[in-house]
Amino acid sequence: MKSFYGDLKLGILGGGQLGRMLIQESINFNITTHVLDPDADAPCKDLCNKFVKGSLTDYQTVYEFGKGVDLITIEIEKVNVDALEQLENEGVLVYPQSRVIRLIQDKGVQKQFFKENDIPSSRFQLIQNRTELKNVEFSLPFIQKLRKDGYDGRGVHPVRSTADLDAAFDAPSLIEDWVDFEKELAVIVSRNEDGEIKTFPCVEMEFNPEANLVEFLISPSTLPEEILKKADELAVKIAQDLKIVGVLAVELFLTKDGEILVNELAPRPHNSGHQTIEGNYTSQYEQHLRAIFNLPLGDTRSISNAVMINLLGEKGFEGPAEYEGLNNILKIDGVYVHLYGKKLTKPFRKMGHVTILDDDREKAIEKAKFVQTTIKVKI
Amino acid sequence: MKSFYGDLKLGILGGGQLGRMLIQESINFNITTHVLDPDADAPCKDLCNKFVKGSLTDYQTVYEFGKGVDLITIEIEKVNVDALEQLENEGVLVYPQSRVIRLIQDKGVQKQFFKENDIPSSRFQLIQNRTELKNVEFSLPFIQKLRKDGYDGRGVHPVRSTADLDAAFDAPSLIEDWVDFEKELAVIVSRNEDGEIKTFPCVEMEFNPEANLVEFLISPSTLPEEILKKADELAVKIAQDLKIVGVLAVELFLTKDGEILVNELAPRPHNSGHQTIEGNYTSQYEQHLRAIFNLPLGDTRSISNAVMINLLGEKGFEGPAEYEGLNNILKIDGVYVHLYGKKLTKPFRKMGHVTILDDDREKAIEKAKFVQTTIKVKI
Repeated sequence: MKSFYGDLKLGILGGGQLGRMLIQESINFNITTHVLDPDADAPCKDLCNKFVKGSLTDYQTVYEFGKGVDLITIEIEKVNVDALEQLENEGVLVYPQSRVIRLIQDKGVQKQFFKENDIPSSRFQLIQNRTELKNVEFSLPFIQKLRKDGYDGRGVHPVRSTADLDAAFDAPSLIEDWVDFEKELAVIVSRNEDGEIKTFPCVEMEFNPEANLVEFLISPSTLPEEILKKADELAVKIAQDLKIVGVLAVELFLTKDGEILVNELAPRPHNSGHQTIEGNYTSQYEQHLRAIFNLPLGDTRSISNAVMINLLGEKGFEGPAEYEGLNNILKIDGVYVHLYGKKLTKPFRKMGHVTILDDDREKAIEKAKFVQTTIKVKI
Repeated sequence: MKSFYGDLKLGILGGGQLGRMLIQESINFNITTHVLDPDADAPCKDLCNKFVKGSLTDYQTVYEFGKGVDLITIEIEKVNVDALEQLENEGVLVYPQSRVIRLIQDKGVQKQFFKENDIPSSRFQLIQNRTELKNVEFSLPFIQKLRKDGYDGRGVHPVRSTADLDAAFDAPSLIEDWVDFEKELAVIVSRNEDGEIKTFPCVEMEFNPEANLVEFLISPSTLPEEILKKADELAVKIAQDLKIVGVLAVELFLTKDGEILVNELAPRPHNSGHQTIEGNYTSQYEQHLRAIFNLPLGDTRSISNAVMINLLGEKGFEGPAEYEGLNNILKIDGVYVHLYGKKLTKPFRKMGHVTILDDDREKAIEKAKFVQTTIKVKI
């Protein structure tokens, strides 16, 4: 492999906020970055050495983009995997491997992988279309998920009653048990080419019971040691079973019976690891670079309790974004703002995130609540 | 002032490593960056929204560059201040103010400012040329410094014996007592437009006598509380006296008698504050942005003991840089590498820095010594 003097070209498929934060870290290693994204105004546009506007799912576009770099990585799964496979055959490094992306792209195949490898996950069944939905052996309520292209909550259809059946997706899907979970957890694991594996401490998502939405993420989790150990071991096992190179986000459910079930995987830096930038000795972005360039993995320990809040576009506002309350939240010690460089806001669009550090966990949560009610993305 | 949605244009005079690290932070605030630098391959070149190749000392170039932005800052003092003053008159924000840059650019005026404001500093005398050097009322050894344009050790001439007089600068200079110091210290202080002032904890430095560059910096200093308090109060006083907006590095001598003398000022992020990126709750780069955009200043406390090492080009090597030993140092927990994106190395060129964190100060120093002997910038 070429060395780090600036001629080492990393291609990133996707130019969103995850790519943006990856580039912020890649600067420290003199990595030249090329980015492919269909949006001419993608958050990475002005930060990379070369920006290519183009489709992530078109074979020829991805192939040609890949021929110009030494190593390709992704910040979104929805990419043309056939092109990546061809690039691998021609000697371009692709991390995570095309094989891993292909497996994770299809939620049905992902579930089969869990089953074959004794990875605990909710019961499931695969269907081809809406007609088959009527014959599934699941009692209400259950979940329908599109096998492909779901993202950020899209492609998920909760079936609470027979009335919900009509609005179901008429496409190859996955039917899953409705898991009555106690908490949602996540473990970010990383593996480099040498096979070194490291996990970040398990994090918890705090729900707003009223809105039934993830309100914030708390790092590290304070659940009993045996649960955390189980979550950690599962993440390591999955990274080993997949032989992935890169970081992998493992989203988990802790059920009301104290069982740990794997929900979904993401073979890239993930929303549930943003707080590692300030809250851990190594960030998930640096760790991803270390993994894909086969460098020794970094120290994943937490520096402090951290709470992460997504900055979503306020309901009812669509247009050039303004950040109300920024000044007030920056008055508080341990508040870190990350804006994603998106000019236009719309309801629930991820416009940025805020991480709050405090040695006292309760104080961190209290500060996070203040931040949440103070900063608003409007126009 | 415009708000943070990406249309707020920050102009940076200078495109070196300080600008590069400032841009890494400015990404978090959606700040659009324009950079002016005479070097077409400057470290900031590919990271800013707009790069202008041009002279930093030419009136017209700086003026025209400044007309295209909302706020101008510097990462090097050697810039055309007349142009900045004109831009200020025309309503462009310039932080630090042209007045402050002008004062600090001239080491003679800087010394007079210290004298007028009762800021302890070594005894000095101003001369116009080499001829006047023979008549100075200083006993050997003493120091001759060019009043203008000294940088990174250049422009400093130690006069140890009469033999050194012939090689003295024949230009307006400052003659200073040779301070027999115990330690070199630095305090980074910041002040925003509202007049809020915060200091980072005082750091201690070790110099490479051959290169006359900081080789080894330890944060925070463990000197007696009364000395640290004196250093801190001095930095606050200087920021107040100057009414500077931005960060200001205050370089200090601790004499063998336990006296604190101000050596020099730098009105910008500084080499003695690199370790704040990982070692403090707020980095000097974020603090500079907060100060110049008149945001509340961030928490400056240390997270951990930190040691910073400059990665200098190895003696005897000139050409495209390679980083030997990178893999070995990344194996150690708490090691953070920052490469500056300079393609060509030459002896003592600042090619990057490494920060080492460890809760145990002695261990941090030990790790730093290992890093120092392990990583080499060669070709």
